[in-house]
Order: sequence, then C-alpha cells, then structure tokens
Amino acid sequence: MIIDTHCHYTTEPKALHVFRDKQLAGLADPARKPASLDLGISDEELIASVQPQLKLQKERGSDLTIFSPRAAGMAHHVGTEEVSKQWTTISNDLIHRLCTLLPNNFVGVGQLPQSPGVSPKNCIPELERIVNELGFVGVNLNPDPSGGYWTGPPLTDKHWYPIYEKLCELDVPAMIHVTSCCNPNFHHTGAHYINADTAAFMQLIQGNLFKDFPTLKFVIPHGGGAVPFHWGRYRGLCLSIKKIPLAEHVMHNVFFDTCVYHLPGIELLTKVIPIGNILFASEMLGAVPGIDPENGFPFDDTKRYIDQVTTLTEAERYQIFEGNARKVYPRLDALLTKRGHAAKTFS
Amino acid sequence: MIIDTHCHYTTEPKALHVFRDKQLAGLADPARKPASLDLGISDEELIASVQPQLKLQKERGSDLTIFSPRAAGMAHHVGTEEVSKQWTTISNDLIHRLCTLLPNNFVGVGQLPQSPGVSPKNCIPELERIVNELGFVGVNLNPDPSGGYWTGPPLTDKHWYPIYEKLCELDVPAMIHVTSCCNPNFHHTGAHYINADTAAFMQLIQGNLFKDFPTLKFVIPHGGGAVPFHWGRYRGLCLSIKKIPLAEHVMHNVFFDTCVYHLPGIELLTKVIPIGNILFASEMLGAVPGIDPENGFPFDDTKRYIDQVTTLTEAERYQIFEGNARKVYPRLDALLTKRGHAAKTFS
Repeated sequence: MIIDTHCHYTTEPKALHVFRDKQLAGLADPARKPASLDLGISDEELIASVQPQLKLQKERGSDLTIFSPRAAGMAHHVGTEEVSKQWTTISNDLIHRLCTLLPNNFVGVGQLPQSPGVSPKNCIPELERIVNELGFVGVNLNPDPSGGYWTGPPLTDKHWYPIYEKLCELDVPAMIHVTSCCNPNFHHTGAHYINADTAAFMQLIQGNLFKDFPTLKFVIPHGGGAVPFHWGRYRGLCLSIKKIPLAEHVMHNVFFDTCVYHLPGIELLTKVIPIGNILFASEMLGAVPGIDPENGFPFDDTKRYIDQVTTLTEAERYQIFEGNARKVYPRLDALLTKRGHAAKTFS
Repeated sequence: MIIDTHCHYTTEPKALHVFRDKQLAGLADPARKPASLDLGISDEELIASVQPQLKLQKERGSDLTIFSPRAAGMAHHVGTEEVSKQWTTISNDLIHRLCTLLPNNFVGVGQLPQSPGVSPKNCIPELERIVNELGFVGVNLNPDPSGGYWTGPPLTDKHWYPIYEKLCELDVPAMIHVTSCCNPNFHHTGAHYINADTAAFMQLIQGNLFKDFPTLKFVIPHGGGAVPFHWGRYRGLCLSIKKIPLAEHVMHNVFFDTCVYHLPGIELLTKVIPIGNILFASEMLGAVPGIDPENGFPFDDTKRYIDQVTTLTEAERYQIFEGNARKVYPRLDALLTKRGHAAKTFS
C-alpha cells in the first residue's frame, strides 16, 4: 500500500472561496458577512472537485492520501481569532465530508484555529472534535501564526504545551506547517515553508521538548527543509550545544516527508536520514506545478524518485511508503487494521 | 592554489570585545563610551590571534583566505546607525591590518554600517573606503538588518539599488550574509543564516534584479541554504513564476560556497549546481565546531569532502578551489596576477 502523507485540498469548489471573501469582507463591513455557514456544496460537487487528485493518485500509484485543508489557505494571521475559528471549522468539515464520501482514497488531517498572540490552548476543542468526532488522524500545527514575522515564541516554549499534552493524550502527530506569508521577504512555497521547517528543527535541537513529551511526534514536511542537506551542520550543532548525538536527542520523535522535487535530493534524504524517519509524500497538487524539462515528468511525482533509489531494500521501501506512516499515525494504523489491511513485518 | 572564500575573524583579541561592551554601554550611559577609537592592539597581538587560523590553513591545505569581520559580530540591529558606523570602521580596520601584516594568507572583505530602516545609500562611503583605500575585494551585505524579524524590503527592492550601483562600479561582489539574531525563533548559525540564504535566493527568483544589474554578483554562503537540496523546487518555481529556466534567470550572477559540513551534502551540491557557480569555503573557525564522530575529522574541514568527490575533473577542482573565486572577485584576480600568480586555463 502506498500512503501519500502530505496533500492539501487545493481544488476546492469556488463556493469555499466565495465564503472566505464574504467572511473577510465582514471584518470591514459586518453587513457583508456570509449569511450562512452552509456553503451549499453538494456531495457530487465535492467528489467532482477531487477528480484531478484521484486521477494522479491512480496514475502515479498511490493508494491512500492523508488530506488536509489548503496550507496557504489557513492564513492564521488574517482577521481575528473568531474568524480563524469559523474558517477552521468550515475547512475541516469539508475534509471530513470528502473522507466520508471517499474513505478508500482519503484520510483526514485538520487545521487548528490558531491566531497570533492567542494561546494554543484555545485550539484544544477543535483538536478534540476533529480527532474524536471527525476521525482525523493528525493535525497541522503552524509554528508562526504571525504569517512570516515570527513574533511568537519557539515551539519549545511552554506556551505550546497545552496542545502537546492533548496531542499525546489523543495519540496523533502534528505536521509542523506554516501557511501563507504576509512578509514580502518570503515567498510562501519558496522560502517561508522551507525556512519554517529548518527553524522548527533547530528549535527542537536547542530545547528539550521530547524529555517533557516522550511520545509527541512531529512531521517536518518538505523533506525537513534545509536539514538533510546540512545534516553535518545539525549533527555538529547538536553535539556542540547539547552534548548528545542528534539521533538520540530528537530523531525518536521527528519525521521528514519526501516532498523534495528532484532525484538527487531524494537520494540525499534517503542516504543521511534514518529510513525509519522518512514518510512518503508529494504535496500534490500545486506546491510546485509543471513538468521538469530535464526529464519530462512532473516535479511533484515524488514516487518516481524513490522508485529510482536503487540502494533501498524491499523492507525500507515498505517503511517509506506505508510502515512509517502507520507508526507515526497510530489512528491510521488502527483504521487500516480494522479494514483488514494488516501492517507487514519483515524479518 | 586553494582559496578559502569565506572565513570570519572569530579569534579577535579581547580588546575588541572590551571596546564593543563600552560602546554599547555608552548607549545607556554616555559616560561609559570608549575613551578612544584606538583599541591598543599591537601587530604582534594581531598576528598571534590568527595563529589557530593559520595552523588550520596549513594542516588542511588552503593557501589564501578571504577574511571578514565575525559575521555574528556585525549585529546591525543593535544600537543606532552611528554605533553601526563606528563599529564597522573599527572592525574593517582590524581586517585591513591583518591583511597588511599577512598578505600571503589573507585578503579582506568588509562589513557595512547597515542599520534597520536606514537607506543602504548611507553605506556607500564605507564601501568606497574599504575597496579603494583598504584594498578589500568584496563585502558582506546583510539582507535583514532587523536581526531576525525581516522588517525591511527584499533584496530586489529599489531600496537596495544605490549599493548595487556602487558594487557594479567598483566591480566587487557581495556575500549575502546575515548576522546574529534577536528573534528567539532562530538560532543564528542553525536557522537564521541558512534561512536567509534560502530567502535571498527565492527573492532573486521572484524579481528581475539582474536585468537591471547584469554585472552584479552575489555569493550565497552555506552552500546556498536549502536551495541545492530543493533544486527541483526552485527550478520548478522559476519556470512557473518567471517562465524562464533558473539557469538563465539568476545563475549568471549567483554563486554558492561549500560551507556544507558532510560529504553527502557536498556531493549533492557538486551534482546539481553548475561547477562554475561553486566557490570553495569552510567558514572556519567556529560556525560548526568539533569533530564528526562518524569519521573522526572536523565538521568544517570542507576540503576533505571535495577531495572525496570522485566525479570532479581536474579542471572542475581548479574552478572550485581557485578559478571561480578569481572570476567572482576580479580585484582578487588582479592582485594575484600582479603577484605573478596567473590564472590557469584548461583546454
């Protein structure tokens, strides 16, 4: 089974964007607020909207997609906490409907109603709702709700602890994923995403978060930002700052996905990062669109790159494509087991 | 000849730090300002201070080091523009004295008296001084004088144009290098440096800076941040945003150094980045201290990694170790030629 652990709903029906425009227009003029929280999107429209995704899943050979609202759409820095809450509910509910309509294709991951300067504690009700009521298996946690100015505390600060306690209690991992960026220095997919990944990893090196939360699990997307390319730097800094090897300090709790859009990058990733820490993912559709003129294939068809890494054993391929995802997302593992799809073991 | 293009003066005599403390104490209490701009450091002390550097140059086999003030020491976000100016003069003068005392070992690169919210135009007198009077061959340009909050405009903004005009006129390149960081989200060498490299490169993709300044040259240090690892992402984004290949859009003007502290990283760098865009550098001493327990050698002995890349031809090795540096730093090339060390040509 091939599990794509990182895709966002980027082909949303127009009605969702119409709602968002009305919602934000309502900040300036309450008369323009959406009249209803009902988007008026039918099941047929929802199913039609994900056909591009399903087509590519089939063509590229992935079976199941861990699906969350559009990352850039979360925009926690826009509007008030109330706006963030309403938008989060709407966005998560749409993912839930899709996962219910197409349970063999999609499993849900949610966004949280974060807002700059607001305690993450306020996100707990929505976290409980999406896991306990909607059956989501994880959540996207934005390490910079300010949208590119980084005015909040690092992930190792006690500020974040209430949400970590709940994540551990519910046994769901968080993907550390920023959203769109209002700082003109940072293109969202070209700088803000990658830099957030790198910054988050370094924060974890500096802190002792996993001493306090030994079962907390973070997925750092986009191949871990700059980290694998600078693996020597991070191993060296960890030894120098914390006096213990990086592998012991954070790598029991941190996982990288394979959203790296060329073969040499994937080769490096699988060479330096322990295979048990790598989750297959593509972030299709939209993160990096188009065809690579060097080989004629889409940049974001990451399965092709992994298939070309000749050094991987069958057991390692299984880990990347399925096994690690089931380990990191225990609720996904339980779901698949219940559906009669047992995890494989390799002797 | 082996030219290390990126080292900072990190073994400064104590007197420099004493001066800086007094200078910054003077912000709170003018009575504590330094009594004199004379640091009282003798030539002997200066020469003694760089012995660790010279020892490693010899042991590791580099001949000439492009030397600039401590990167984290620039701290443009600390104090006023006047403080930045005074500190910059002092710091550059020290580099100049070292380069005069040890001309076969060091060639100078300067810092600029940047200050948050102040036009880079104000840096022109110091830029002219260090190039025309002190004989420096380049300059470090801080893309984020706010020290980690990124409150200024991107490098492609007209805000920066006066300094680019002067760089082109003087025919010196700028290394894009941030300094220490006052944002607790970003460790300076573990996140801020690498993220600034990545952000700067993406800004260059988004803009058209080299249309306006076809001869402007930027060195992006630390292997180009996350860029080589995500080379597919950047090629894809450039095609998608600018409709032209990355190689044509920015790679005539942008160069990466080899401050990547493990072999697989250097292998990736030399595989995906055109060899003509790679400059040998180590950023010793201090960026990442210590010995890599995986192989028993210092993390920052980057020459060892390059020596181990078996796919490089003799001509390519020459480019990385000497030829590209002479191309990017024309004033260094002129200096070496004048000293009777002609550049090699390979047929």
